[in-house]
Amino acid sequence: MYALTVADHVMIAHSFRGEEFGPAQRVHGATFVVEAEFRAPRLDGANLLVDIAAARVELRRILDGFDYNNLDDLPVFEGQNTTTEFLCFHVHALLCAALAEGRLGEGGRAVAAVKVTLRESPLAWAAYEAEVPKAAAA
Amino acid sequence: MYALTVADHVMIAHSFRGEEFGPAQRVHGATFVVEAEFRAPRLDGANLLVDIAAARVELRRILDGFDYNNLDDLPVFEGQNTTTEFLCFHVHALLCAALAEGRLGEGGRAVAAVKVTLRESPLAWAAYEAEVPKAAAA
Amino acid sequence: MYALTVADHVMIAHSFRGEEFGPAQRVHGATFVVEAEFRAPRLDGANLLVDIAAARVELRRILDGFDYNNLDDLPVFEGQNTTTEFLCFHVHALLCAALAEGRLGEGGRAVAAVKVTLRESPLAWAAYEAEVPKAAAA
Amino acid sequence: MYALTVADHVMIAHSFRGEEFGPAQRVHGATFVVEAEFRAPRLDGANLLVDIAAARVELRRILDGFDYNNLDDLPVFEGQNTTTEFLCFHVHALLCAALAEGRLGEGGRAVAAVKVTLRESPLAWAAYEAEVPKAAAA
Amino acid sequence: MYALTVADHVMIAHSFRGEEFGPAQRVHGATFVVEAEFRAPRLDGANLLVDIAAARVELRRILDGFDYNNLDDLPVFEGQNTTTEFLCFHVHALLCAALAEGRLGEGGRAVAAVKVTLRESPLAWAAYEAEVPKAAAA
Amino acid sequence: MYALTVADHVMIAHSFRGEEFGPAQRVHGATFVVEAEFRAPRLDGANLLVDIAAARVELRRILDGFDYNNLDDLPVFEGQNTTTEFLCFHVHALLCAALAEGRLGEGGRAVAAVKVTLRESPLAWAAYEAEVPKAAAA
Repeated sequence: MYALTVADHVMIAHSFRGEEFGPAQRVHGATFVVEAEFRAPRLDGANLLVDIAAARVELRRILDGFDYNNLDDLPVFEGQNTTTEFLCFHVHALLCAALAEGRLGEGGRAVAAVKVTLRESPLAWAAYEAEVPKAAAA
Repeated sequence: MYALTVADHVMIAHSFRGEEFGPAQRVHGATFVVEAEFRAPRLDGANLLVDIAAARVELRRILDGFDYNNLDDLPVFEGQNTTTEFLCFHVHALLCAALAEGRLGEGGRAVAAVKVTLRESPLAWAAYEAEVPKAAAA
Repeated sequence: MYALTVADHVMIAHSFRGEEFGPAQRVHGATFVVEAEFRAPRLDGANLLVDIAAARVELRRILDGFDYNNLDDLPVFEGQNTTTEFLCFHVHALLCAALAEGRLGEGGRAVAAVKVTLRESPLAWAAYEAEVPKAAAA
Repeated sequence: MYALTVADHVMIAHSFRGEEFGPAQRVHGATFVVEAEFRAPRLDGANLLVDIAAARVELRRILDGFDYNNLDDLPVFEGQNTTTEFLCFHVHALLCAALAEGRLGEGGRAVAAVKVTLRESPLAWAAYEAEVPKAAAA
Repeated sequence: MYALTVADHVMIAHSFRGEEFGPAQRVHGATFVVEAEFRAPRLDGANLLVDIAAARVELRRILDGFDYNNLDDLPVFEGQNTTTEFLCFHVHALLCAALAEGRLGEGGRAVAAVKVTLRESPLAWAAYEAEVPKAAAA
Repeated sequence: MYALTVADHVMIAHSFRGEEFGPAQRVHGATFVVEAEFRAPRLDGANLLVDIAAARVELRRILDGFDYNNLDDLPVFEGQNTTTEFLCFHVHALLCAALAEGRLGEGGRAVAAVKVTLRESPLAWAAYEAEVPKAAAA
């Protein structure tokens, strides 16, 4: 299995609901380093999995949807605790949609699985990985 | 699959028995950066896999069992070469025990697998990963 | 000249006033990795500059003053744009006060200068360095 | 499953054929940080997966085959776009051959899978992982 | 003294003339992580040293002058060994010119010194630092 | 001023005398990442400060003097607490001697100052910097 990863980052504010969050119930923030990994069983004729430049553009477009924002104010996250784990799932879903729409080119058609990692500090990070839904990979 | 990782470090001394270890047969030491990854198929109602603060406390408690020690002198490691690979297994077993004892809260009950990585230098690291024994995950 | 550095991090929200800040005028956030460097021309009799454990405790105490907060709501930052550069100066002043109060032990008396670095992302960071005021170093 | 990883780096030049490569069609270059991960279900009697020193020597020997070269000029890469993904596969094949030849010692006989990661910049990296062919692992 | 640093990277090919360079006399390449540090004794009214976004744009513009190229083919480097040290000096000169032209805004007028660091591998890097020529800082 | 840095690492054991060291009075250990920075006001005719390969060889030779050892057992450290700060000074002195002996070639003759940094963990590191004694730089 091949894998190709591109990285970027966002700087957001948010707060959590639930006593278990302790001081993180207050509005605070994070720099999330975001890593998007694409996996495919083979490369294309040019020896590419997906084009790095295209992958970086697509990841940036997705991150622009919430970068430099207080996530508590965004309708897309209404009713959700925007934990690091949850945001991994959120970015993963948007990357799968981008693959399904062909935004990552022909190479993207062969992507079998995607893993998204968000690093919130040098001491803690989360990830979500799953196969790309069949319709997308078709 | 979701994953949540917390990191910490220890500073230990030890020595190895066996010619294949060359100069590492002498008492030497290492700073091990320790990464504990918890995996679960879903998040809880608060969008958490395990609570990061609880995970950091539990990892620290386990590392306190051998941090700032010469591992050659600890009964728990008697008769063992405390290689990086072996120490990954050791920390993994203690984390699974902690999960089984409910020390990582309700979220910990859903943890399906644990991976422990120890980085001994910028040029070498080891890991051990395995499913959490069924009794623990029950 | 000797130097001893300890690191920690904070996760804060804030916003900036001024058109030049563009999207950063919105409430957003950052994980700041904070590095506190102490400089002294000589070591003490135990070959220490300052005790690492004491330095880490003191840095944490200072960071607890604004960690997990929206800096826009804290009286201590009223009327200030809490840029990365400015926060370096803020932490620097509190470290110099701690040195003056003897909170870093005898070793702290010999500290001639302090440098504080805050890393806001893998692509941008700031620092402030200055000599410790004479009264503090006396 | 256990894993043991060693790292090294190469500094190479190359160019790509195909319009999709944009400016990378010109002769340019890269520092590739190369990580070789060996996986095995158990350790040997000395608690080793593979000997780190031996693994580093073998990885270096393989990298010497193209380090400090323009890959466009090497017969081994003739007709290939030497993308990061492709180079992962190339190093992987040579590591599997080394395992089959017993160059990584008895420990190497138990290696079930190998993963090779090449980091081309802080923002992009690739990997190739696959089981070691049965003859090699026998 | 305050400092503000932004980082980016380039991927170039080149070769060196002189026996002391050994295998680096061949055409090879490097990913250079480039860090541009701006120093000033005080911040502006908005608590900025230089605008991070403007600094990143200007650094990118300068790097575009040789990114994805074989430096041996660029007239600007004719007759020079493009060592890491030399490239630091080259980028430094262009940043000072940008400051003199006011490309970094009013904040840039207060910049007293610039330091440029190029990291060629995890094990080697170089830097050049110097005061900004008076005409530029005026 | 130009600077050229090379990095390597050692894995050592040691213990400290003095109550202020707390648990570090026990035999423990560290992986020290060692960075040796050479500074010079100008480059040689080949645009080199010092040859990177020569600098790496010399740093390795110095580190071999105590790598994979319990520093408590080495005569060279008798009566000393081998703190991170102290070890920076130790390596610095040996690098200055190497420069004086011409071991870093003609480029080494122009080196005006040396800085040695030892990183003991992701959260703590120390450094020692000083001008090269005149006889050495002559």
